[in-house]
Amino acid sequence: MSTDNIFVASALNTWNGQIERAGKAFLALDDRQLAAPIAPGKNRVGYLWAHLIAVQDAMLPLMGIGESATGDWFETFVKGADKDVKALPSAAELKKKWDEVNARTSAAFGKLTPAGWLEKHTAVSAEDFATTPTRNRLSILLTRTSHIGYHLGQVVLAPKG
Amino acid sequence: MSTDNIFVASALNTWNGQIERAGKAFLALDDRQLAAPIAPGKNRVGYLWAHLIAVQDAMLPLMGIGESATGDWFETFVKGADKDVKALPSAAELKKKWDEVNARTSAAFGKLTPAGWLEKHTAVSAEDFATTPTRNRLSILLTRTSHIGYHLGQVVLAPKG
Repeated sequence: MSTDNIFVASALNTWNGQIERAGKAFLALDDRQLAAPIAPGKNRVGYLWAHLIAVQDAMLPLMGIGESATGDWFETFVKGADKDVKALPSAAELKKKWDEVNARTSAAFGKLTPAGWLEKHTAVSAEDFATTPTRNRLSILLTRTSHIGYHLGQVVLAPKG
Repeated sequence: MSTDNIFVASALNTWNGQIERAGKAFLALDDRQLAAPIAPGKNRVGYLWAHLIAVQDAMLPLMGIGESATGDWFETFVKGADKDVKALPSAAELKKKWDEVNARTSAAFGKLTPAGWLEKHTAVSAEDFATTPTRNRLSILLTRTSHIGYHLGQVVLAPKG
């Protein structure tokens, strides 16, 4: 493997590890457990799962490598707030979207070359990118990897009863 | 900047971003707030902070680029459990250790070349590394970046009262 390929493989390994851990945590929960808040007065577990799915889905247009597949989920679960969501998607629907978005991102990531990972994302101008080359697709992957960790740390605190 | 350097800079940017966020969250807390559990029956906030410091400190020997500077903290705050810790370090002591470990890791990371980041860490054998080159120092940095996110997500849930 070339060094560039090892850099990319290391980043994707960490990403895939977080996706796997999150999948294990969320897929074990039923509708009742998904409707429980992670802590008193905080977001419901199911809201966080939909939030992660929407953020992950939005990586495709943000990286300029695909279209969103979750419709208004970004509006509802990223820009919005849990208190404004009357009915959460069911466990079955969340699982379906989770698998679908994972398959789409995984396929799109697999097509990127190392040089492609270092290209600019779509939320930065060419001028800014010229002076700050770390505003690339890889950085999106890395920050979103930590973002999964952030909410995973919360979900494990939710009462399991 | 060469492509190898951009890969490394992107990873270090994400790491530094998480360190900064964690610093902001923890440094704002006093001894009383650090003694509060993140959720009923869970670890105390101060225990988590010491845990992060110990894990971060342990990256130096794990990467083979330095010695631990926190003595028995790994034993107490990583292998151990909060319930066995009678007196947490004070806010002042935690702040001092946090700054010290950050300075040490930052200096050590700054000396690594891109090729150095792709060298094996000390917990993998040369044989295993030959077939799995992603078991490198960079992967340690990436997983520990998500690890900060994991506990940061928990700390923001702790009651601030």
